[in-house]
Amino acid sequence: MPQIAYLGPAGTFTEQATRSLTGDFDAELVPFETVPLALTAVRRGEVLAAGVPVENSVEGSVPATLDALTTDEPLVAVQEALLPVQFDLLVRPGTEQSAIRTVASHPHALAQVRDWLAANLPGAEVRATSSTAAGAAAVAAGEFDAAISAPVALEHYPSLERLVGGIADVRDAVTRFLLVRRPGKLPEPTGADRTSVCAVIGDEVGSLAELLAELSLRGINLSRIESRPIKDRFGEYRFFLDFDGHVADARIGDALTALRRRCSTVRFLGSYPKADRTPASVRETASEQAFRLSAQWVEDVRAGRLA
Amino acid sequence: MPQIAYLGPAGTFTEQATRSLTGDFDAELVPFETVPLALTAVRRGEVLAAGVPVENSVEGSVPATLDALTTDEPLVAVQEALLPVQFDLLVRPGTEQSAIRTVASHPHALAQVRDWLAANLPGAEVRATSSTAAGAAAVAAGEFDAAISAPVALEHYPSLERLVGGIADVRDAVTRFLLVRRPGKLPEPTGADRTSVCAVIGDEVGSLAELLAELSLRGINLSRIESRPIKDRFGEYRFFLDFDGHVADARIGDALTALRRRCSTVRFLGSYPKADRTPASVRETASEQAFRLSAQWVEDVRAGRLA
Repeated sequence: MPQIAYLGPAGTFTEQATRSLTGDFDAELVPFETVPLALTAVRRGEVLAAGVPVENSVEGSVPATLDALTTDEPLVAVQEALLPVQFDLLVRPGTEQSAIRTVASHPHALAQVRDWLAANLPGAEVRATSSTAAGAAAVAAGEFDAAISAPVALEHYPSLERLVGGIADVRDAVTRFLLVRRPGKLPEPTGADRTSVCAVIGDEVGSLAELLAELSLRGINLSRIESRPIKDRFGEYRFFLDFDGHVADARIGDALTALRRRCSTVRFLGSYPKADRTPASVRETASEQAFRLSAQWVEDVRAGRLA
Repeated sequence: MPQIAYLGPAGTFTEQATRSLTGDFDAELVPFETVPLALTAVRRGEVLAAGVPVENSVEGSVPATLDALTTDEPLVAVQEALLPVQFDLLVRPGTEQSAIRTVASHPHALAQVRDWLAANLPGAEVRATSSTAAGAAAVAAGEFDAAISAPVALEHYPSLERLVGGIADVRDAVTRFLLVRRPGKLPEPTGADRTSVCAVIGDEVGSLAELLAELSLRGINLSRIESRPIKDRFGEYRFFLDFDGHVADARIGDALTALRRRCSTVRFLGSYPKADRTPASVRETASEQAFRLSAQWVEDVRAGRLA
């Protein structure tokens, strides 16, 4: 059975996301202490792939993931998952809400349910743990009365029970995860795909505007952009870009050739189906046919067949 | 004495940054449990200003800060601080490194010194606390043997001593903080300023490329960009932009008028001196004189004085 790494421990949001990312095939999920360690295991071929947080994660540091994806040997994303940021309140059976004196979780999770705790457990002391799962483990061990946990935690701590579900101060918040593996056969285009790249460009005025114009001129919709400093290369900027489309699409391939010409480095981080399955809208002038016909026309002109 | 809010508790990186942000004047620093609570106190006039993390913070959630700055009444940044991400190992006096069995800190801080701990305290168990300062407090109370803390923590826990200083797995990592207050008189331009805005634009292909072209056409250097989802407004995107220059500069004012025309919302988040004091380089065609002369020329043409 193939092994899939994830940012551990077991019972966290990343485990839950990695399960949904690998739902299609039998795999053994293996927790790692950090994202860089999980990615190193993929690079060495010790595991087939890794599930990692890339946006707004509760426990994992997303900047750490982005940095780890772009240093060392290339890896590519092959699948995407979105998880709602909603927590369960886990207790030992028989614990009543009014009897809860201590509630434990990762500090970021506690921050995200602060209003709920103030309204529903005003007397309880909050206690930090290294992950949401560690909070559940501590409740199972009798150290604290309740834990704010990912829904998947209950499967790892069957001695606990869910007193309240769906806890969230902010409705509709989601975290985004990717399944990454070593470069190889890409996922098939589905018509609702996303492509991720990391581009390094010189720190000249307008270099980013020109880079994005290469996308917009080809009708490509950008869904996320984030700049990150490059520590040891003064005067260069690194951008993480997500946009609609698959590298197999003519307009995406054409845009990536332009990025490759413009950037000192471009790293392809994958083309994969979008988790929300919304199809890309492609304008007529950027369709597969438009690219094919225009390339044919230039070829004909160059060959003296047309003018 | 004016009061300045910060993301608490006392003894954290945010306190340290807020001290350096308010070094010029006498102020009483007041810790708040969350960034939104600190900003609410500023909006209500209960405190003069607040120190908040905006990039790569060890303990504070930066997305939470960005969201809190752009909901509710406007606030503007008036000063910037950069802190190196370097930790102290604090112990009770007389504790030898070889005797350390437990080391406590915020999970994100522990993650950032993981390699150092593996090399220097391989036998120690790590324990999560709700902040780096809470780790120091627990060591002072005798609960753990050592804490990974911000340098400022030692001032709050004088019964502890610094066993090791300058701990960091990644050299040169920094966190960035802003001092924000209610809109009023802006800081004077210094020639080395930064302007921050939040811009909301429609989700049409090319809208961001066009927005950035408005900056680059005026010779304005972008230093950071980040997209953030808008939860309840489908089909719109929100961008946080930092660029060189002061809103009092002709090219910045001119660019902001263009952004205001293009965006459904633009929020001015402040013009303030850059912490690193590197002056903006302004091309001749975007100088104050160039803007003044060109406006004068159009005025003369309109008045029939020139053609």
